[in-house]
Amino acid sequence: MREPVLLTPGPLTTSLATRSAMLHDWGSWDSAFNDLTASVCRDLLAIANGESSHVCVPLQGSGTFAVEAAIGTLVPRDGKLLVLANGAYGLRMARIAAVMGLPHTVLEWPDGTPVDPDAVAKTLAADPAISHVGVIHCETGTGLLNPLGEIAAVVALAGRALIVDAMSSFGALDIDVATTPITAVIAASGKCLEGVPGMGFVIVNREALTASLGNSRSLALDLGDQYAYLQKTGQWRFTPPTHVVAALRAAIDQYLAQGGREQRLARYTRNAKTLIDGLGRLGLRLFLAPELQAPIILTFHAPAHPDYDFKAFYEAVRARGFVLYPGKLTEVETFRVGCIGAIDEAELSQAVHAIGEVMRGFGWIA
Amino acid sequence: MREPVLLTPGPLTTSLATRSAMLHDWGSWDSAFNDLTASVCRDLLAIANGESSHVCVPLQGSGTFAVEAAIGTLVPRDGKLLVLANGAYGLRMARIAAVMGLPHTVLEWPDGTPVDPDAVAKTLAADPAISHVGVIHCETGTGLLNPLGEIAAVVALAGRALIVDAMSSFGALDIDVATTPITAVIAASGKCLEGVPGMGFVIVNREALTASLGNSRSLALDLGDQYAYLQKTGQWRFTPPTHVVAALRAAIDQYLAQGGREQRLARYTRNAKTLIDGLGRLGLRLFLAPELQAPIILTFHAPAHPDYDFKAFYEAVRARGFVLYPGKLTEVETFRVGCIGAIDEAELSQAVHAIGEVMRGFGWIA
Repeated sequence: MREPVLLTPGPLTTSLATRSAMLHDWGSWDSAFNDLTASVCRDLLAIANGESSHVCVPLQGSGTFAVEAAIGTLVPRDGKLLVLANGAYGLRMARIAAVMGLPHTVLEWPDGTPVDPDAVAKTLAADPAISHVGVIHCETGTGLLNPLGEIAAVVALAGRALIVDAMSSFGALDIDVATTPITAVIAASGKCLEGVPGMGFVIVNREALTASLGNSRSLALDLGDQYAYLQKTGQWRFTPPTHVVAALRAAIDQYLAQGGREQRLARYTRNAKTLIDGLGRLGLRLFLAPELQAPIILTFHAPAHPDYDFKAFYEAVRARGFVLYPGKLTEVETFRVGCIGAIDEAELSQAVHAIGEVMRGFGWIA
Repeated sequence: MREPVLLTPGPLTTSLATRSAMLHDWGSWDSAFNDLTASVCRDLLAIANGESSHVCVPLQGSGTFAVEAAIGTLVPRDGKLLVLANGAYGLRMARIAAVMGLPHTVLEWPDGTPVDPDAVAKTLAADPAISHVGVIHCETGTGLLNPLGEIAAVVALAGRALIVDAMSSFGALDIDVATTPITAVIAASGKCLEGVPGMGFVIVNREALTASLGNSRSLALDLGDQYAYLQKTGQWRFTPPTHVVAALRAAIDQYLAQGGREQRLARYTRNAKTLIDGLGRLGLRLFLAPELQAPIILTFHAPAHPDYDFKAFYEAVRARGFVLYPGKLTEVETFRVGCIGAIDEAELSQAVHAIGEVMRGFGWIA
């Protein structure tokens, strides 16, 4: 049997070319690997259009490690972080600040309600202690796209710094730090760039990074120290995930050859449409209003049948070759389906077919 | 040309079977991956003979991330860490504590001088505030093996907890937590287990981990939270480096099939002997006294010729297929050669031959 297609927010189905790049061992001190790191960082920076103002700092670990590193490095101990939360990942950012003992406050909306820039402006006006604002670009908990441009505008107008968790959007949705005032954009190898998981990175404003010296209460997660060492030696401070970096290099090569961000977004948009149309024909409805839905990960209401059980649904769809993702909402029964990875309409159409078979098999639809 | 052999403390030359395990994509929520994680943790725990007292907590990132996580999780804010330092990695542990703002003190020996258990006992007797002691088992800066059993005995006698950075020794040198009083042993995927780099792990005493709740000032590096979530769900809290975990599984399969720890140590010992004898014939002397030298990474005095230049030496040896490692000592000119990885006497003998050719070519020896 073929291995299943991963319809998740990551780890994803990657291309064989990307995985094959891991068949080579690299010395972390060797100039060939230094060149690899430098070329990856250069391309990541270019994707965000950050060459003139920002730098790219890679970091070992999952994307959440990079989120914690960005907050711990950039927000001074006498600063204060305003977290804009409308889902699981916004709440995770608030939890990171809480565990660090960092002064912070949370402005919260229900799942599925976008961040309201006016409310952000009012909160900033009312609390001059707030130095930084954190937001999730595409809230993976639901798949909702927050209005990044409008949020960035009100944060900049108020003279504060914006930290964007763009984990599940970077490389597909538009993030241009030359035209949008953003201090730091955080993402990871294993999402829309279609690398394998194991490293994050932060596209961070050069002056903000320089000014952050001494903020971090973590050595491993100090982005300023990581960057300074990279600049001085070409090497990562601590053992890099060499094979993951090599896979990301191969994935970016394919990304560029396939037409870059716009073509990546176009493919994901076709994937999302195939799912929405196909599952719609099976009576499955999107949780979000279409205009809030990013073509990254889709949240669907669970089948309405009283016998519905996610575990059984998951296992039966998996047996047909597709790995779904559980919902992350507490109030409504949902499941999620990813549109990202090295897959196109062919796989998504097959997935719709498999889901339909399973629903009919369980008697959930006629 | 074949790819070069990595004679470094990691990343290492791995086997094709280990790298090929990364050709498969895994869903991080899927039960197949949960089983993979559980089996890896079970085997790591068994290698340390920790089944009855300890648990294994895997962690994303490099080994240093796991060192910081162990210290930040286990040492309470009203505790105090005594760091035993006789090289670069001991000093790094002290720096981690300093950056965290954790009360700590450092007992230091010169490079190449082993930790003196009597001095540790005296320091513990004189400072009742010390709650934890941190030590490097095999100090990668020189390759020195510290007397772990004797250190553990004096720490236990004084009623303190011992945290061992066993990064470059775990899996080859003997560490038995059932017979040696050690609270936590820290290591990583890409060293003597011969996996690829990208994850660390901590073999930690179950009661000590339970008692650590609330100590960590980091969410990403909280071992207690990581373990609790793994126990509850079978999953890592944040995206795991799936391919790295799969490679480690394959590497451990080979480790066990090849006879486990004793055979791994026997091979590395043969590798070290091949290097010491062969480079000795070229007039290159070990920096350490033989009885202090672990068969993991060897520090050699640089060739005595006045024209010696490490960069030129490195490049010329690399062109012949072998990647050396720079020395890490400030007072003496040295270079390092690793004995670990999926290599045996054949590769080390070829390396000796290449180094001899290079030295003759540069006119450093006749």
